Amino acid sequence: MQQSHPGSKTTQVTKFSVSTSTEVTDVVAEEVPLELQVLHQGRTHPVSITMRTPGRDVDLAIGFLFTEGLLPAGHTVAGGRARVRGNTVKVPWPPAVPLELKRIERHSYTSSSCGVCGKTSLEMVFQAIPFAEAPTVWTITPSLLPTLPPLLKKAQQLFATTGGIHAAGLFDPSGSLLHYAEDVGRHNALDKLIGHYYRHDLLPLDRHILLLSGRASFELIQKAAMAGIACVASVGAPSSLAVELAEDQGITLCGFLRASGFNCYSHPHRITDHNPQ
Amino acid sequence: MQQSHPGSKTTQVTKFSVSTSTEVTDVVAEEVPLELQVLHQGRTHPVSITMRTPGRDVDLAIGFLFTEGLLPAGHTVAGGRARVRGNTVKVPWPPAVPLELKRIERHSYTSSSCGVCGKTSLEMVFQAIPFAEAPTVWTITPSLLPTLPPLLKKAQQLFATTGGIHAAGLFDPSGSLLHYAEDVGRHNALDKLIGHYYRHDLLPLDRHILLLSGRASFELIQKAAMAGIACVASVGAPSSLAVELAEDQGITLCGFLRASGFNCYSHPHRITDHNPQ
Repeated sequence: MQQSHPGSKTTQVTKFSVSTSTEVTDVVAEEVPLELQVLHQGRTHPVSITMRTPGRDVDLAIGFLFTEGLLPAGHTVAGGRARVRGNTVKVPWPPAVPLELKRIERHSYTSSSCGVCGKTSLEMVFQAIPFAEAPTVWTITPSLLPTLPPLLKKAQQLFATTGGIHAAGLFDPSGSLLHYAEDVGRHNALDKLIGHYYRHDLLPLDRHILLLSGRASFELIQKAAMAGIACVASVGAPSSLAVELAEDQGITLCGFLRASGFNCYSHPHRITDHNPQ
Repeated sequence: MQQSHPGSKTTQVTKFSVSTSTEVTDVVAEEVPLELQVLHQGRTHPVSITMRTPGRDVDLAIGFLFTEGLLPAGHTVAGGRARVRGNTVKVPWPPAVPLELKRIERHSYTSSSCGVCGKTSLEMVFQAIPFAEAPTVWTITPSLLPTLPPLLKKAQQLFATTGGIHAAGLFDPSGSLLHYAEDVGRHNALDKLIGHYYRHDLLPLDRHILLLSGRASFELIQKAAMAGIACVASVGAPSSLAVELAEDQGITLCGFLRASGFNCYSHPHRITDHNPQ
């Protein structure tokens, strides 16, 4: 994957319509972990790791420290002395301000970094995945995926009334909706779905398609990989790190599902009109 | 705010079109903190607090513990013995499995709970807000808000190429875009925006309109409140807790911004054709 403009990367995409597919280069939003550190009385304290789009990292660090209630208003010098090195930002703490990391220590802000949880590299994530890559060869036709979002939306009870809730749905390769979960948090919706199958001892979900109502970020692909899901489709866009993780984990990742077609970002071999058996 | 169906609440809404406004009852997605606890060798260990839509709390707890790598596959009995009491779910830990809370202790999953950070009640959040409610009386006309999303989208560099990135934009009461930030994480976009103004010692932002490209969840309103922002508008839907916090904090919260109008969920007095001066 190549850097294009700051904050985005180019990637190879197989564009499927119901009847054709073409390979093109596309641009996805960049997602990279950032470690936030505070320098206080000569010691460096790690504060949080968050998945962010690179750029304005000092603004992000200062804004986070302020809105989370650690840094009181008015200490503008802290931002001026902050230093970014690679994917680490270090903020010298104002001497007059007590550093109360306990406020966020147990339930630290990790927002879009769920699934990372302090891990410093993607390798930590890869090691944790309990299931071997599915040996089964199964395919779906290009015309199947565009039929799924209407099925999920029709089933969603809360979306119909609120217009503002995420969903994760699990389909079999014939396109039948097996189970779904809704939540204001998209990670929660996926955790509810996977938790259901865990409790019924039905993992791994290696012959299933996961449909996400929103965008596909790193942590959602990480959770899908944990459950052994081999095909993930999202109504929205994927991030760069989601594509990289899906590529590495053998997951077929599709995005921008529309009635007319979709983009496939990794392992398009599962999408074909030819029956492998 | 009244419970309607499970997972949603009804709320009073002022529906504005460019020329009229009507008060109706509407439904928003419910958002409530859930504390996840693990019972291990007779001791209760708090694991995380997450903002979730109530329902399927045991699925959520088991799915979270599994996808975060704490609970290995196959221990289905853990879910069977889990107990939900109010907004707490307690999972008895399988005796044969070591409990390695260190894995998530520092950088715990809080996903949509950023801004909560272990606080057990909304009052904790209210106390932390550093600015008194703005004494200034300023208003905007109903026709102003629908003009803002096109201005933000036009300015967004990364959205144009990736189609998948969140933005937070700050406008003055005349509708001019002053500054914006983009990120794959919506909390990050807002932290970047607020961090910028913090660094330039321009807080509180009490004569400004914050525009969010997506939905308005609790933690975004919490961050806006920290920066003293008096008016928040979102392209998507708000959650129940976002509405409650905005109501309590004197914030005018609008959602579903469209060319034809929008919904106002709290403090509609700032939106009027009458000039207060």
